[in-house]
Amino acid sequence: IFVCLTHKWVWIIYQPEQIFHMSKAFEQLTERFQRLSRIGHATSYLSWDQMVMMPSAGVDARAASLAELAAIGHETLTSPEVEELFADADASASAEERDSLAEMQRVWRQQTCLPAKLVKEKIIAGSRCEHGWRTQKSANDWPGFLANFQTVVDLAIDEAQLRQAANDNIATPYDALLDLHCSGDSKALIDSVFSVLREKLPPLLQEVMEKQRSRKSYKVDGSYDVNAQRMLNESLMRKLGFDFNAGRLDVSMHPFSMGSAGDLRITTRFRDDEFLDAMMATAHETGHASYEGGLPTQWADLPIGQHRNMCIHESQSLLFEKQIFLSKTFMSGFCAEIQSHFPAQRFEAEDLWLAATHVAPEFIRVEANEVTYPLHVLLRYEIESALINGEIQARDIPDLWQQKMSDFLGLDVAGDHARGCMQDIHWSDGTFGYFPSYTVGAVNAAQIFNAIKREHSDWQTSFSKGDVSFVRDWLLRKIWSKGCTLSSQALMEHATGEGTTPDYYLEHLRARYVDESY
Amino acid sequence: IFVCLTHKWVWIIYQPEQIFHMSKAFEQLTERFQRLSRIGHATSYLSWDQMVMMPSAGVDARAASLAELAAIGHETLTSPEVEELFADADASASAEERDSLAEMQRVWRQQTCLPAKLVKEKIIAGSRCEHGWRTQKSANDWPGFLANFQTVVDLAIDEAQLRQAANDNIATPYDALLDLHCSGDSKALIDSVFSVLREKLPPLLQEVMEKQRSRKSYKVDGSYDVNAQRMLNESLMRKLGFDFNAGRLDVSMHPFSMGSAGDLRITTRFRDDEFLDAMMATAHETGHASYEGGLPTQWADLPIGQHRNMCIHESQSLLFEKQIFLSKTFMSGFCAEIQSHFPAQRFEAEDLWLAATHVAPEFIRVEANEVTYPLHVLLRYEIESALINGEIQARDIPDLWQQKMSDFLGLDVAGDHARGCMQDIHWSDGTFGYFPSYTVGAVNAAQIFNAIKREHSDWQTSFSKGDVSFVRDWLLRKIWSKGCTLSSQALMEHATGEGTTPDYYLEHLRARYVDESY
Repeated sequence: IFVCLTHKWVWIIYQPEQIFHMSKAFEQLTERFQRLSRIGHATSYLSWDQMVMMPSAGVDARAASLAELAAIGHETLTSPEVEELFADADASASAEERDSLAEMQRVWRQQTCLPAKLVKEKIIAGSRCEHGWRTQKSANDWPGFLANFQTVVDLAIDEAQLRQAANDNIATPYDALLDLHCSGDSKALIDSVFSVLREKLPPLLQEVMEKQRSRKSYKVDGSYDVNAQRMLNESLMRKLGFDFNAGRLDVSMHPFSMGSAGDLRITTRFRDDEFLDAMMATAHETGHASYEGGLPTQWADLPIGQHRNMCIHESQSLLFEKQIFLSKTFMSGFCAEIQSHFPAQRFEAEDLWLAATHVAPEFIRVEANEVTYPLHVLLRYEIESALINGEIQARDIPDLWQQKMSDFLGLDVAGDHARGCMQDIHWSDGTFGYFPSYTVGAVNAAQIFNAIKREHSDWQTSFSKGDVSFVRDWLLRKIWSKGCTLSSQALMEHATGEGTTPDYYLEHLRARYVDESY
Repeated sequence: IFVCLTHKWVWIIYQPEQIFHMSKAFEQLTERFQRLSRIGHATSYLSWDQMVMMPSAGVDARAASLAELAAIGHETLTSPEVEELFADADASASAEERDSLAEMQRVWRQQTCLPAKLVKEKIIAGSRCEHGWRTQKSANDWPGFLANFQTVVDLAIDEAQLRQAANDNIATPYDALLDLHCSGDSKALIDSVFSVLREKLPPLLQEVMEKQRSRKSYKVDGSYDVNAQRMLNESLMRKLGFDFNAGRLDVSMHPFSMGSAGDLRITTRFRDDEFLDAMMATAHETGHASYEGGLPTQWADLPIGQHRNMCIHESQSLLFEKQIFLSKTFMSGFCAEIQSHFPAQRFEAEDLWLAATHVAPEFIRVEANEVTYPLHVLLRYEIESALINGEIQARDIPDLWQQKMSDFLGLDVAGDHARGCMQDIHWSDGTFGYFPSYTVGAVNAAQIFNAIKREHSDWQTSFSKGDVSFVRDWLLRKIWSKGCTLSSQALMEHATGEGTTPDYYLEHLRARYVDESY
């Protein structure tokens, strides 16, 4: 009586033709990258399934399938014809094709410039180090960790040097790793932005702390039904412009966002004694999803149609989380909605805003607030860039960490590695060059939102009514619809009139946390 | 602060090596079929996602990804080396390898024996006819349907003849289509089983109807909370041996089962005014899932390790649904559990059993019961086999339908095509040779359960305690763990001592519906 979907092999007959037609080189490359993108679609949604739906015993079969798809993707990109196709396509490309080709070539170079042996060693060393880290962290065992981590660092330096050698535009080995996540935002640019933050944020933090001491302290507690929270978060997403015919909200251990236009999936996580954290995560991920949903659909399956880099991606999520959701006016406007989901409690908009904008220096990055977060990133950035560029050794990290925590945040980590240099997963598996995107993203977000406010002087009125459509329209026009047609800095200039600058972020922090004006 | 999974391209670097090593032909073929299976894993869970989770606007991107995976699978199987590899492997194969090779070759032949042009025409004609059917059915528009359907039939006949030509063991064109779903169970075998049912079922149905008239009639109605139903169904699945660390229950428009050991996913659907239908679907799909979960894991990614055919698959689902769940003793034992989920209502086990075993002739196959269901299948089987073997024309179908409905079930369909020959989706998209598996499955289920009862004379005691582990152990040993190492009839002989025979099914119907002994 019921449909049974178990005939694993039957689907294969439903494929009429070979996929690679004889056509000009540009079209052949386009077809290859479309194939990659469609394999990427499968990989993405299977990964979502793994994190949100899959029962625990499914892990081995899923890993085998994902590895196979990765192998197929790798073969598609590294087959010897591809280099020839790029040469042929370059010779005859139109201007628009040239932009698309440049992005294809960037992806291709990133994926093909490492020898298979190094990639394999990296995977093994990264898995071993990350696996060890999970217990060494709680045991505060830095020497044990360092024994594995030294290999991870050595291989990352090899990787960085090889990637630098493959690309004339890369100034230092660390820039080559930055290029994987923050493409276009060089170490020179980040240095110029971060040096200002390094100088101005610690004294600003002191001013903010002064202010915090004088204001009322409020903390959300009580008991909050998870189903009610889910409906509240869906309501927040709708208010932020999310379309549930083209996306979902689910729950996972760590909130994340994935998918593309038509099927955007975000996750959050609920506690039963607090509801603001989940809402901030939801607003954040809604920003990520909105960017993906607004990318140019005509290039949906090509590199030119993807998000620019993680510094821009993070700017969109932080704009939704910090500039919109955490603004006094939006939160006041939304307070009645929050109230309606928890009828047993009484909330004042002002109290919720106080709870959400509480600032204090802390040891743990993921618990940090808008004011201290950049200092956590700055610390990591200074260490990892020096490490990859050979200016320091892995064994120097704990001392450097202790010194910078003291300089930046006035905290003494005193040999507590679990709350110090072993707190993050990133380095353990060899991810270097990712941390800066969090803070460049925050800086970009403040700069972009400042540009929006200049055009919409009545933004507070709109926010108080829960209307953010003018923000979405602006972002769609100036950022989302551009895909990868502009470099990250050209995109910032196009959108805001200037390249990434820390001024608006510092201004924003002062306005919110010292003047408490929004 | 949050993980963002949007870097679509990064995954590709995580693949160290080419997948096809230089090794002996058998190993190379094994690697190719493993690749197919892992692509199949992706396809299956993406299809599950589409039916259970995906928002509506995701359909185009999902279709493009599934088509790409199908294309990759097709290329993997049809590349010219494969034929050579089979020749080389055959020459040097061990006995165990030969069994595995035979199943690989069966899959390969099925997937490669049709010209691309025919496959493409089939897809187009099938989609058009199915699409039209969705409105023509409710408009009772047989001539409109026939205009599209004639092409579907012509192409199915072409397909059947080409498949027959590619395989020396196939006696008629219809057998070639049977081979796709009921591999090993030929038209000759099915004729021999169905001819007995054709003779004995109509008079047995009269006896059953007589009995039904004399017994109390009971119908479940009321209002049943869907969350309570979900918990009840999960409880039923646990009782039937389902492990929720290795599977899930969800909701979809039509109940189905998919997945493999470690990650078995079944769906059901809930009404709020009745709960038995959902439980029957759940028991049914749990049977499908149990078979998949018990297949030999050492060959999980190879054709030899898959389910035998749909006649065996359907026997497992029907055994769980009809032989276990619908038995008086199991249902009595489970009644307290049902009761506990719906405290506002009062149930008698006997009443539930009466409701679940109600019999009356009906026009619609999917609404049929154990006694009449084979007659619906018989009717379709006689028509589709004659159609594919060129003995009748598509235009003859309505008259044949009317006549057989009258002969088999005593019902006059009188030009009501929506409740007649246009009720099923199967033929509209060119699926012929599938229907018999429902009834061969039911016949196999009764025969297998009879063999189990012979070894476990106290089965009713176990069932009344909700213990079905002896059934699972027996099935695992005799059926599930065999994968494709035996032909379907050899498997039935191995498990029950004889090939498929209708005697036990008829005996079962008499015992349950005339004697009411279980």
